[in-house]
Amino acid sequence: MPLPEQMTAAVHAYVAAFDVGDPELAVALFAEDATIEDPIESPLKVGTDAIREFYVGSMNAGAKLVLQGPVRIGGSHAAFAFQAQLQMGGNLVTIDVIDIFKFNDAGKVIEMRAYFGPGNIGQVPG
Amino acid sequence: MPLPEQMTAAVHAYVAAFDVGDPELAVALFAEDATIEDPIESPLKVGTDAIREFYVGSMNAGAKLVLQGPVRIGGSHAAFAFQAQLQMGGNLVTIDVIDIFKFNDAGKVIEMRAYFGPGNIGQVPG
Repeated sequence: MPLPEQMTAAVHAYVAAFDVGDPELAVALFAEDATIEDPIESPLKVGTDAIREFYVGSMNAGAKLVLQGPVRIGGSHAAFAFQAQLQMGGNLVTIDVIDIFKFNDAGKVIEMRAYFGPGNIGQVPG
Repeated sequence: MPLPEQMTAAVHAYVAAFDVGDPELAVALFAEDATIEDPIESPLKVGTDAIREFYVGSMNAGAKLVLQGPVRIGGSHAAFAFQAQLQMGGNLVTIDVIDIFKFNDAGKVIEMRAYFGPGNIGQVPG
């Protein structure tokens, strides 16, 4: 099992990947056979190619992540609350999300789930 | 699937159950065959009796929950960040937690998982 500090660092590296807009920095955090369920109950994205496609799309949209409170680490899981912020048509669109990362023994994310829905989306006029 | 408003209301009712210290108000939110994994990767508590025992113990310890940020609702899941606060030996002990509730079609919690670990526990001298 990876150390808590390693899992917390992976979460911060994930946020930093969005900050610099480099999808490869996010992809590098995932195992080759990882699954992404974002949003929760949507079809799984499976494996490196699907994961890359997902983060290229997210970062092309210009999403930045603002962590809200400390990263929770339990066993081989990390849980963290954040607000995704995107500029759309001159307005700031916000999405309040909680992500769960499950790590494998090599310290890579093997499963990611993102919890949010329509009620968590807001808009601030620019 | 329950409405998002119903799931959000259940989370607020859960927090309120701790506020008034009435474990039955928490137990009433769960299905009879619900499972609790608190903390994540610990043995499951299964069914009403085990759930009641868990909340009687938590509330006897005097735990109060302070929500941190909005409840996230996706599909039949609610995710929420909070700080549990307990008075112990004159000090305030804090535990930063993220909970996931999965609801059944009747609007009862069928699965609860709590994400936190030793690194999420703090102490404020009284």
